[in-house]
Amino acid sequence: MRSFRKELWFNVPTRRAFINITPQVNDCLQESGIREGMALVNAMHITASVFINDNEPGLHDDYEAWLEKLAPHEPVAQYKHNRTGEDNGDAHLKRQVMGREVVVAITNGKLDFGPWEQIFYGEFDGGRRKRVLVKIIGE
Amino acid sequence: MRSFRKELWFNVPTRRAFINITPQVNDCLQESGIREGMALVNAMHITASVFINDNEPGLHDDYEAWLEKLAPHEPVAQYKHNRTGEDNGDAHLKRQVMGREVVVAITNGKLDFGPWEQIFYGEFDGGRRKRVLVKIIGE
Amino acid sequence: MRSFRKELWFNVPTRRAFINITPQVNDCLQESGIREGMALVNAMHITASVFINDNEPGLHDDYEAWLEKLAPHEPVAQYKHNRTGEDNGDAHLKRQVMGREVVVAITNGKLDFGPWEQIFYGEFDGGRRKRVLVKIIGE
Repeated sequence: MRSFRKELWFNVPTRRAFINITPQVNDCLQESGIREGMALVNAMHITASVFINDNEPGLHDDYEAWLEKLAPHEPVAQYKHNRTGEDNGDAHLKRQVMGREVVVAITNGKLDFGPWEQIFYGEFDGGRRKRVLVKIIGE
Repeated sequence: MRSFRKELWFNVPTRRAFINITPQVNDCLQESGIREGMALVNAMHITASVFINDNEPGLHDDYEAWLEKLAPHEPVAQYKHNRTGEDNGDAHLKRQVMGREVVVAITNGKLDFGPWEQIFYGEFDGGRRKRVLVKIIGE
Repeated sequence: MRSFRKELWFNVPTRRAFINITPQVNDCLQESGIREGMALVNAMHITASVFINDNEPGLHDDYEAWLEKLAPHEPVAQYKHNRTGEDNGDAHLKRQVMGREVVVAITNGKLDFGPWEQIFYGEFDGGRRKRVLVKIIGE
């Protein structure tokens, strides 16, 4: 069994954003030389997500509005977590809806995707450097 | 390390449905001959889910009503995504709640499940052919 | 490829609770001797979750209040599932928001975590013995 590990770094200037990281994950796969196996791609921070969906800006606006409805940022005092001095209580909730990680099959040296699948980094508490882990195991 | 790959195909006549795919995933496992490892089962389409829960029709009705409350199909104009000509904006949201994939342990040649765990395909935008990927790695 | 399997048992006296299981998962990893690979940690019951987030009690209170808003326990008659004689319809919904499982990279014999990542067992229908599965594969 072979394994490969790489961190992807982000510094999103806005509080929230969705970034297509499929090219970077694909680069990791090519660098790994692994042809059959599984790739784990996970946010290393607990106010961010990695998820798979459509690369369509209207949909990303829909996610933004919907998550803000399910777990609004304001008023920040509604979250006990913010008593610690943080203002990111909502980000911890939004990330649970969108998920921490994806696992992708590797087949014939490629990300084994359906027709529209793309991998996104979901930032819910930006303005600082944060990481995504890519771990690939296989042969 | 051995690996196995198979696609399961669906053509759900209704817009939404939950289908128990545990027997098909189990068939894949038997066909693979793998006895220790992990199975990834994921929707290959971004308006569908694979998840694990109870095989109980009342619960499935509860999921249907709850998801429709969290992310209603109508009015379709509420989603920017639908400006692309689609009417499935809600399906992209519902799928995030239910999840894209499950990873199941393989132990002694069996899906290593708790007492009530069953794998379901969740369709949120039916009426056309869609796929689920089963990828198993191990020995 | 090596594999390791262990069940963690819980008997939560309250209906709902969040329990930090990072030390137990770490013990499993040390016992396995695996240094490169992946660990799957999943609830074996369908009214419980395994998820990764912050070990901060205020945040856990926020999760509790938020999940109760998204899928209230009362009135129990609102869920068709409860016609089976159960009163845990809400628990099946809450678990979908928080997720069944996490997959964690294993690197140099350690759980390959970001700065604040901790693994939690989320109980939504306590008062009886329930299990979490830890499955590790690698070398």
